Amino acid sequence: MKFIAPLLLLLNLSLMAQSRPRAFGIPFGVMPTGTHNAITDVKGVKVGHFTLIQGDSIRTGITAILPHDGDLYREKVPAAIHLGNGYGKLAGYSQVRELGELETPLVLTNTLNVATGMNALISDCLRRPGNEEVGSVNAVVGETNDGFLNDIRGRHLQEQHVFEALSAAASGPVQEGNVGAGTGTSCFGWKGGIGTSSRALPTSLGGYTVGVLVQTNFGGVLQIAGVPVGPELGQYYFKDELESHADGSCMIVVATDAPLGPRNLERLAKRCMLGLARTGGIASNGSGDYVVAFSTAPENRITGKDRIRSVQELANGRVSPLFLAAIEATEEAIINSLFAAETMTGRDGHQREALPVEEVMELLRKRGVVKE
Amino acid sequence: MKFIAPLLLLLNLSLMAQSRPRAFGIPFGVMPTGTHNAITDVKGVKVGHFTLIQGDSIRTGITAILPHDGDLYREKVPAAIHLGNGYGKLAGYSQVRELGELETPLVLTNTLNVATGMNALISDCLRRPGNEEVGSVNAVVGETNDGFLNDIRGRHLQEQHVFEALSAAASGPVQEGNVGAGTGTSCFGWKGGIGTSSRALPTSLGGYTVGVLVQTNFGGVLQIAGVPVGPELGQYYFKDELESHADGSCMIVVATDAPLGPRNLERLAKRCMLGLARTGGIASNGSGDYVVAFSTAPENRITGKDRIRSVQELANGRVSPLFLAAIEATEEAIINSLFAAETMTGRDGHQREALPVEEVMELLRKRGVVKE
Amino acid sequence: MKFIAPLLLLLNLSLMAQSRPRAFGIPFGVMPTGTHNAITDVKGVKVGHFTLIQGDSIRTGITAILPHDGDLYREKVPAAIHLGNGYGKLAGYSQVRELGELETPLVLTNTLNVATGMNALISDCLRRPGNEEVGSVNAVVGETNDGFLNDIRGRHLQEQHVFEALSAAASGPVQEGNVGAGTGTSCFGWKGGIGTSSRALPTSLGGYTVGVLVQTNFGGVLQIAGVPVGPELGQYYFKDELESHADGSCMIVVATDAPLGPRNLERLAKRCMLGLARTGGIASNGSGDYVVAFSTAPENRITGKDRIRSVQELANGRVSPLFLAAIEATEEAIINSLFAAETMTGRDGHQREALPVEEVMELLRKRGVVKE
Amino acid sequence: MKFIAPLLLLLNLSLMAQSRPRAFGIPFGVMPTGTHNAITDVKGVKVGHFTLIQGDSIRTGITAILPHDGDLYREKVPAAIHLGNGYGKLAGYSQVRELGELETPLVLTNTLNVATGMNALISDCLRRPGNEEVGSVNAVVGETNDGFLNDIRGRHLQEQHVFEALSAAASGPVQEGNVGAGTGTSCFGWKGGIGTSSRALPTSLGGYTVGVLVQTNFGGVLQIAGVPVGPELGQYYFKDELESHADGSCMIVVATDAPLGPRNLERLAKRCMLGLARTGGIASNGSGDYVVAFSTAPENRITGKDRIRSVQELANGRVSPLFLAAIEATEEAIINSLFAAETMTGRDGHQREALPVEEVMELLRKRGVVKE
Repeated sequence: MKFIAPLLLLLNLSLMAQSRPRAFGIPFGVMPTGTHNAITDVKGVKVGHFTLIQGDSIRTGITAILPHDGDLYREKVPAAIHLGNGYGKLAGYSQVRELGELETPLVLTNTLNVATGMNALISDCLRRPGNEEVGSVNAVVGETNDGFLNDIRGRHLQEQHVFEALSAAASGPVQEGNVGAGTGTSCFGWKGGIGTSSRALPTSLGGYTVGVLVQTNFGGVLQIAGVPVGPELGQYYFKDELESHADGSCMIVVATDAPLGPRNLERLAKRCMLGLARTGGIASNGSGDYVVAFSTAPENRITGKDRIRSVQELANGRVSPLFLAAIEATEEAIINSLFAAETMTGRDGHQREALPVEEVMELLRKRGVVKE
Repeated sequence: MKFIAPLLLLLNLSLMAQSRPRAFGIPFGVMPTGTHNAITDVKGVKVGHFTLIQGDSIRTGITAILPHDGDLYREKVPAAIHLGNGYGKLAGYSQVRELGELETPLVLTNTLNVATGMNALISDCLRRPGNEEVGSVNAVVGETNDGFLNDIRGRHLQEQHVFEALSAAASGPVQEGNVGAGTGTSCFGWKGGIGTSSRALPTSLGGYTVGVLVQTNFGGVLQIAGVPVGPELGQYYFKDELESHADGSCMIVVATDAPLGPRNLERLAKRCMLGLARTGGIASNGSGDYVVAFSTAPENRITGKDRIRSVQELANGRVSPLFLAAIEATEEAIINSLFAAETMTGRDGHQREALPVEEVMELLRKRGVVKE
Repeated sequence: MKFIAPLLLLLNLSLMAQSRPRAFGIPFGVMPTGTHNAITDVKGVKVGHFTLIQGDSIRTGITAILPHDGDLYREKVPAAIHLGNGYGKLAGYSQVRELGELETPLVLTNTLNVATGMNALISDCLRRPGNEEVGSVNAVVGETNDGFLNDIRGRHLQEQHVFEALSAAASGPVQEGNVGAGTGTSCFGWKGGIGTSSRALPTSLGGYTVGVLVQTNFGGVLQIAGVPVGPELGQYYFKDELESHADGSCMIVVATDAPLGPRNLERLAKRCMLGLARTGGIASNGSGDYVVAFSTAPENRITGKDRIRSVQELANGRVSPLFLAAIEATEEAIINSLFAAETMTGRDGHQREALPVEEVMELLRKRGVVKE
Repeated sequence: MKFIAPLLLLLNLSLMAQSRPRAFGIPFGVMPTGTHNAITDVKGVKVGHFTLIQGDSIRTGITAILPHDGDLYREKVPAAIHLGNGYGKLAGYSQVRELGELETPLVLTNTLNVATGMNALISDCLRRPGNEEVGSVNAVVGETNDGFLNDIRGRHLQEQHVFEALSAAASGPVQEGNVGAGTGTSCFGWKGGIGTSSRALPTSLGGYTVGVLVQTNFGGVLQIAGVPVGPELGQYYFKDELESHADGSCMIVVATDAPLGPRNLERLAKRCMLGLARTGGIASNGSGDYVVAFSTAPENRITGKDRIRSVQELANGRVSPLFLAAIEATEEAIINSLFAAETMTGRDGHQREALPVEEVMELLRKRGVVKE
């Protein structure tokens, strides 16, 4: 029996408003969010999930992020990738670094299905009208390892699944938790998943939006809004465990409509790791922490037609508010993923418990972080 | 009248035990500290300060960190430098990156006196016995900009001052706050300075020590042990200020006795930025955030005598506990610098208030972070 | 009709001795070669090709390079990858950079079959005895774009083809020219392909061997042994062509038995680009020039069993002869590929002529580079 | 007796036309040069030398390169620095990398006088009208080690000498050889020095100019226009010498009026190492090979006044001709430095012979590289 994604979507969206940490009164930083508190608040950005839950041991999926509606290959966007910790298999790094541009949608999936994602993005590009002569496509595919709950060695995802995620891409609210590429992931010893958040800068700072989406599958010593939830609940790795435990990875995507070129996008991407740090993440040896950043500023799209491009570039001296926005949105997106994810049983009967939200809220109330 | 550093040293040491955040009961992470909770807990490491306070407007100094007692040029140590944010003037980066080794002590100072630090380290090297033929020295000098309180344009530091810092280097407790290179710095809108901290890994994780020393001169939205002190006290930059305020830099030095080579030292250095993030630092556009990491493991010193060196190397799979140690020690070192620093008046009558420790403690007690 | 690789192998080997540039008396640098003047002169290294020539338009293949006979995943080797110019799709970069090790054989292929190579390497790893629990594999796959002669959009290579290349891997002489991943490539406007060369250091310099293998598919202004063959034969791109012509890429693999760690391997890799420069290569905008370097030094293999590894490391001060060896071997390997490659007709009737060896030799004789 | 630079200037300029390799008929690549075949062919770029030759053992100097006539601090230019091999002391790397801009003239000097260069550039900046509040200056100073001929340990250069080089800066022909920062350098076993060259792209490729200036102090196996001059004249290092010989460094500056941003400038800089390779340079362990690239395109200067800058950017697909230009100009500039440099005696009676131009020309004629 194949999981029916659309149904879940409806169910979850109704739950989402009330289950997100911010709705519980948990504060994340000092900046206001965008409308949906999601990466899709950056105008034009769409997100689509495909979730594969089958039998006892298949718990995986695809999440696709589209910078705009057009053909990315023909209208590339400025982009950069930061290697937070490179123990991972992200595809497409070097060309993005060399040329400073993204020419496919972003696809997130599991570690052993990266090639599937690449093949699908290539197929998708080659078959688009106008691309009949294209013979080179730089597919950007990120991953984390969902092998605790998922039969990752089975490599169950198919190209078709990627196409479904691409087709499902939509603006507006984004489903979080056990969905898409977050279906089978774990985070801080609890169930992880997909999370998203955004920040809207005031007009005096340019009025830009910064949106973040994360696939959380990493460890450390969890803190939420500064409260050491991990230690308080006895859930973190330290002694022997810290060393031996395969504590995973975090894929982070950060989008903005600010006119940033690749150099400042790389700096923006780098700040997302500071947001991860605020949740207690440590970027352990075994983690593949990658941040993909892109700008949707319409005037800076790259069509390859002109010898000389006219580019708008936010001055170096104006980027700090975007940095803070990226940090805050990353922190919140990670915690959002934990709040949305639900207990799951998977491969070999492994079970990963959801974050005990009630206990967490109790802790936060006791600390005066949220009102009683 | 020139400031008399030794006297201050005595005064401060007696005050230090009681004024450090940990003595107030503030928790920083889950790992135990070393004996002095200082970078000098890494065996062999010494720290020396020279403080220059003269007249109304000279408020600056030198802090020297020595990996060992010998001639660094003849017994180099494995090292790496991470560029957290490169808006700074640190000298010596490229050679450390290329060769993976440090051949002088580290010197921290103000932005416009980096050349003074270099000249002094070169002089110090050239005149040592056995170095009569040396014609190339890679001096590593870091800096932050103390120009708010200090007449930085006057470049008041002299080579002799660097020699005094080198001579003053000692093991044991390290003076924090308005001292050495931290004399005139600012942090989160309050008086910054020098801070230090360490972590001691349990034997099961190798028993290594990680020590951190910081020169704090940066901004963001201060949080202490997770409590948003900046917002609570109305002291942080956001709207227009966030963009235009020159919010400085953080120099970080991390030492360990674990047998790490340059590659894993660079990874360790990278984690210190995660510790900075936990204090609310954002690595703003204008910050020069550099982390210099070195290993003191005696068996890995580089004498240049042998064609093939036998090197001990901690396996990749064992480094995560060191990462957590570096994160925790950096966070604590930064907060230590704020607690130790005292209100200072300097150039053009500028005044920088000390962190209001009583108010902070009140906040932390209210939040249940420290016991009443 | 599928191409029968073994037959070609026999034919070519017999031709090889006499057709290689060195046999014609062309000099390449000052260092002596190894026994076979091939990457396989580095003890333990094996190379295997799979060539796919079908119908009118399939002209592609796979070349596999094995650092040793064992299971790479269980006995990793120190490695590094240099990005000469990153307009390419090489898989596996970030993990090699982060961990400094290689855990699969290297596979070279065409641009749009990188995912096939990854899948095959993953399959190969997962099914090996002892790897039943492995859920993460960092496949390293390089590519160049053979789309001029090959129906690259058809992505005709299958996992099975990769397994055949892996199985075919052997020590001893290496077939060059239109074979494996070089089947359909072009170089300097002529037919390119696979080339290989090696250098053997004298005992006084350590006695190490450096071996290089290239997949040549790039442009520039060809010079052979310093003679400007491209201009003399009217075959190079300059005016409008230089800008618009898709002039391809060069994949370079450099192996050594010298005990180098990842840092010095990266430096070694970087030098191969200097060898490419000596043939007139310019690393144009559109080229994906990657150099993968690894060390076979048996004492430095990484088994992951020990907390602390004892590593032998050649001193920084001793690596320059290896640099020169890498430069010379890269230059010669590239020219070898051109001499070995034969005229080919492929997709859409495109034809790529072989380098006119007779004319080239005439030029070289006239210049006194080779004896009459 | 202090050396009188202006006199030398006059003498050398008259000699220059006839002594440059191109005047002898030696070909360097396929592209035409600019008017003076010098970095100053890039409109607005000026070069100034200060030469210090005193007594038996002082043989050093300063070379300053000015991107434009204005105050660089107030009108910064896009810039990048490539680390060819980082065994050197270049100051200013990290800020150029982070911000992508140059805010001082470039100064080249000897290894132990880098701090002098920094201090002078800072002084020069601070005292300019309008900079009364400046408290942070990123001085970019490169160096090579002239210690064979020069009493480098004496650090004989003073700030005043840097000011003289800055004041002497002029457009038009540039003096080469034993002058400025090249006064005491050695190259391929002969006397090195300053060299320069340029390329002018045809209008069809944009009509841009690329200019290069080098300070040559490195080794390898010299080849000139492809002819192995080093081996033929028995002048190169191989066996024990290759390993132990301190074979120095090459500082390279590349300027262009093409509208390149920092990312493509870094790529341009990287190509200069390919030009070095074509002379037989190997970027040995001990070399500090740095390439500083900047664009003078007037519309892209950075004044810091605007929130959003309008930038012109040459498309990625159009940069390859600039790459070839940089390669050719670097090769020629290096050979120019060797042809211009004259035999010099210095410290401890050390003597460095000039390249024996007559013998070289004889070789080149025999090879048919130049007409008899």
